[in-house]
Order: sequence, then structure tokens, then C-alpha cells
Amino acid sequence: MSVTAREIHLAAYPKGEPTPTNFTLAERVLPDPGQGELLVRNLALSVDPYMRGKMTGVRSYTDPYEIGEPMDGAAVGVVEASGDPSYPVGTTVLHGQGWRSHALLPVSSVRPVNVTGDLPASAYLGVLGMPGQTAYIGLFHKAEMREGDTVFVSGAAGAVGSVVGQLAKRNGAKRVIGSAGSSEKVRHLVEDLGFDAAFNYKDGPVRDQLVEAAPDGIDVYFDNVGGEHLEAAIAVANDFARFALCGAISGYNATEPPQAPRNLFQIVAKRLTLRGFIVGDNPELVGSFYRDVAPAVAEGAITFRETIVDGLENAPRAFIDMLRGANTGKMIVRLGQ
Amino acid sequence: MSVTAREIHLAAYPKGEPTPTNFTLAERVLPDPGQGELLVRNLALSVDPYMRGKMTGVRSYTDPYEIGEPMDGAAVGVVEASGDPSYPVGTTVLHGQGWRSHALLPVSSVRPVNVTGDLPASAYLGVLGMPGQTAYIGLFHKAEMREGDTVFVSGAAGAVGSVVGQLAKRNGAKRVIGSAGSSEKVRHLVEDLGFDAAFNYKDGPVRDQLVEAAPDGIDVYFDNVGGEHLEAAIAVANDFARFALCGAISGYNATEPPQAPRNLFQIVAKRLTLRGFIVGDNPELVGSFYRDVAPAVAEGAITFRETIVDGLENAPRAFIDMLRGANTGKMIVRLGQ
Repeated sequence: MSVTAREIHLAAYPKGEPTPTNFTLAERVLPDPGQGELLVRNLALSVDPYMRGKMTGVRSYTDPYEIGEPMDGAAVGVVEASGDPSYPVGTTVLHGQGWRSHALLPVSSVRPVNVTGDLPASAYLGVLGMPGQTAYIGLFHKAEMREGDTVFVSGAAGAVGSVVGQLAKRNGAKRVIGSAGSSEKVRHLVEDLGFDAAFNYKDGPVRDQLVEAAPDGIDVYFDNVGGEHLEAAIAVANDFARFALCGAISGYNATEPPQAPRNLFQIVAKRLTLRGFIVGDNPELVGSFYRDVAPAVAEGAITFRETIVDGLENAPRAFIDMLRGANTGKMIVRLGQ
Repeated sequence: MSVTAREIHLAAYPKGEPTPTNFTLAERVLPDPGQGELLVRNLALSVDPYMRGKMTGVRSYTDPYEIGEPMDGAAVGVVEASGDPSYPVGTTVLHGQGWRSHALLPVSSVRPVNVTGDLPASAYLGVLGMPGQTAYIGLFHKAEMREGDTVFVSGAAGAVGSVVGQLAKRNGAKRVIGSAGSSEKVRHLVEDLGFDAAFNYKDGPVRDQLVEAAPDGIDVYFDNVGGEHLEAAIAVANDFARFALCGAISGYNATEPPQAPRNLFQIVAKRLTLRGFIVGDNPELVGSFYRDVAPAVAEGAITFRETIVDGLENAPRAFIDMLRGANTGKMIVRLGQ
């Protein structure tokens, strides 16, 4: 019972903002799973900012995507044919072969997910997946947030930022401030997610808006954006503030080197610590992440939103729109139920 | 027996590079020391890069110098009249009232220094003073240097950098690389101080020279310079490299915001940690600094050089020249013996 998988391939490295023509839809016949393999039908797949960095032909912290090959990324799916009795047909699994309808996987590369209650399987691509882990590790282990801190997070309505803000509030932050790119997102941060203040970075200079939102300065900055946001955070930081640098989406589509903060000397004067990190470096923290965060998500104390695009063929569009900030919460490409 | 002290006052905040006209020489009559006070005749005083940051009228990590007031800074001197029997006349002390011939000081603000062997008292302004402590704390406690690291230090022939390089070599660095601003300094680093490689940053792009000097990348960067050096260090850094940011002398006289590194996203991709610091924040480390470093200095295992300018009236010139990199090792203004 072979299956014809539909896959998104990278057709060309984008120059600047990706366009649909950078991608092609291809088909591939997958054989039956052998011993120790699983054939998985994907239910939902993830498009994430880091993927833009793999579309350059230059090695960053991961290998780049290859032209003419299927892309990959996080996905959840259901086992359709199994070569391992501990993963019977119907098991829901999380794995790394996104951007395709079906995947043939060694069992060593999948993780069963426990889909209970009202949580959709796609939650394991967002709040309970890599974005949630990024928020947790960055906030507590890289920025070393402490009770009483004022915390600023950029890209706050995104998959990572929305978890950062809620985790900070639940763990005793004095004040949590978020920036986002629309008035609807700003409303969502304050009214739905419990941020103390939020602003639309398109409304005026980030620094001016941050000064107003954080009259006593900030102790922690969780950076998803880079550029002007980073400069503003340095300017408004209190002495000994800690920055977790997670991404710099403002520059991902740039064709010129991005404008850099001109106030880096303040890193010395204010004794700031800036720490870049990648979630995958700390597998030892994943266990405590699930123990701390999963119950709060299950009981609704940490909420999440998804922006859902249906259909594999629309994955490139979802990716492009996500880089433009069209999503609130996690951008999910849904392939089935 | 009152004394007429000669003092250097700040006459105006410099715009760009300081000039001699920014300073004036003034006199002040100091009364006899009261109970718990000391009258100290200064032997040597320190001019340091951080002082430029106090000449702006804007609060940085310390209060700015005030116009028309004497400047201050580290100095060593000898007690000429004493209001405290534990500091008899003739005691050599370290204190914070530099830029003047005599100082009237509460005993709580001085520290006796033990001038032994061939060490001049001025060593307590350099290798055994704040610059040496800066090197020690930055290298071991901020950049967390470990055995086997490749270490790069900018401003390597200066008071701080020359100690950084020697400490790194003595503590198991695999390779120590320094940058400086003249071929004579480069020679000094390699031949006298034991650096594995050094280059003159004026000879070509810092990045190109650093790539050549560090073919396997760098694990630690001790930044005294900022600007192009910082960008180059980010570019050449290995994953998980640690940067101690101590100063940014390249920008101190700038009238425009300095050119900033355009590759800050590499902080995320390479998981770098950048930590700004000020030596005074860690008084608890001063004891271990003296225990670890002073014996090595006394026995000549750590060497130091001084660039000496004679006469209080020449202190402004020494300061200006130091900012231009005219010194090798510590710039000292000598007032007497």
C-alpha cells in the first residue's frame, strides 16, 4: 500500500521577502514502512521564522534547505502504517518532516503526543512545542527572570512572545510589556493575555513607546525582533538587565545588513547581559518545561491562539504571511483532522 | 601648616576629542587634616579611558565631572600630615582624588599599599590596580575563560589588555590573540608578553586580520574597543563564545553615534553571550585578584609596562594621548618620587 505524498520543495533561495514562486509542489511515492519505520499522515505543520534563515544557502546554526528538495519542520500526524508495535496505527506523533502530506519516519525520530481534552494536536507545534519551549527556556534560563522584574517582549502576539508574557505574569513579574504590529494584537495582549501594557510598534518610535510603557525601565528583554526594538530595549534597560536574544525577524527578509543599535556602549555602562540562544541546545530543560507548563495549558491558565491556514498548497503563503506578522499566536497549516 | 594644592579642573565638556583648553590648572589651599583625615601628596595619578565618559554632562554609570571642579581618579601618594595614628606620615596610600598635587582625605577613602621590591607605587594604578582587576574579573568571571579557549583581546597593549593576555596564557588558553595600533605594540605583545599572535588594526580590516590570526575561531573576546572590533569578533566567534565588554574606546570621542556591528543576528545563531561589566561591581573578587595576581607580578611572571608623563600640568596631554593610543601599558602621570 504505497502512498503518494505531496511535498513543498524549495525552488529557489528568496532574495528579500519570499514569494510563492520560490516554492513548488511535488509528489513522491513513499513505500510501505519497513521494520522500525512509520508512515505518518500529517495533520498540521508549523511555519516558523527560523525557516527563513535556512533559505539562504549559507550555513547558520542549522544546515540550509537545499534547492529542489522538500523542506522540513515540525509537524504532527497520525500513524497510517506501522513497522513498530509500540506505535500502532492511529497513534498521534510529533516529528520533524513538515511541509508534506505524508512522511516515512524511523521511530527514533518521532515522539508520541498525548492529545487529551480540548487541546488540538497542533498545540504541540505551538504552546506545547518548540515555541513554548523557546519562551520558557529563554525567559527563565537565559534572561533569568526573577520575581519583581519588569519584562518586555517584542513580537509579543506571536507563538513565542505570547507564551513569554503569560509565563512572566504567572511567575511574579511586576510588569509585562509587549510590542506587536496591529491594534488588534495590542488589544489581545492586554485584554486576553493579561499584559500590563502593550503598544503597536508601527504607531511611532519604539523607544518613545517603550519609555511610556515602562516608566521605571525594564529588567528583562525577550527579543524576537532585533533592530530598532533592540536599540530601544538597551536604551530603556535598567542596570544589570538581562536580554534573551531569540530572533531578529525584522531583518530576516532584509537584503542589506540591518540597521544596528547605535547605543551598544550602554551594554557596558548598564552592565547588561545579552545571551543568544537556540531552543534545541537545552534538551535537559524539556522535561521541566512540560511539568511546569503543560498543566497550566490544559486547565486554560495559559491560553493560546492559532492562525490556521488550510491546505498544504497554502503553506508557502502561510509562511510568507507569518513573516509579515499576519498571524496572532501560532501560524498553523492544517492538512486534516 | 596649610598646603596649596594644584588641581586640574574641567573647564568645558569636550566636543569630540578633548583639547588642552578643556582643562585649567587651579590652586586651592588645603587646611591641616582633622581627626580621621589625611593630607596626601600625590606621587602618581591615573588617566583612564572611562574618564572620557564623565566629560559629557550626561550620567553614565558614574556621575559626570562638573565644570569648574577638580576631576578625580585613582592616585597613589604619601601621607604628609596625619589625623589618624594608624596612617603615620610617610605611609603610601591608594585613593580616588587624582588630578591634583595634594588631597585631603578621610581615612575611610584610602587604602594603604605595600610597596615592596622593585614595584613602583604606580603599579597600584595599573597591573595591581583597577586595570588589572578589570582584566581579571572580565576574563575569568564575565567571559568565563576556560582551559583550551582561544582568546582575543582588543586594545591589547593597553593597561587592561596586556594583563588579559598574560592571564589567559598563564591559565591554559590554547591561543591568545591581541590587536593594537602600532607595529611596535604588536611586537611587544608577541615578543615581550607571550601572545601567540597579534596584529595592527590599522593595517587592514579587523575581520580579515582576525580570521588569519584565529583560523579556528575564538571562544572568548575581551572588548576594550567596540565598533569594528566587536563586529569582527562576532563574525569570527565560535558557537557559545563569551564576550566580556569592558569599553568601547573607538567611540569615546565620536560626535556621531558609532557605527554598530551589522551582524548582531549572529549572537543568536552562534549562541553568544555578551556581558557588559564595570570593575567596581564586584568588590568581593578583589581579594582573590590580589591572591592570584600579585605574587605573579612580584616575581615577574606577569610583566607590565608604563608610559610615564611627568608633571601635573601635563595630565591633560597624557589623557588626550592615551585616548589616541600613544601609551604602551599603563599611562601614568608622575608627580614626584
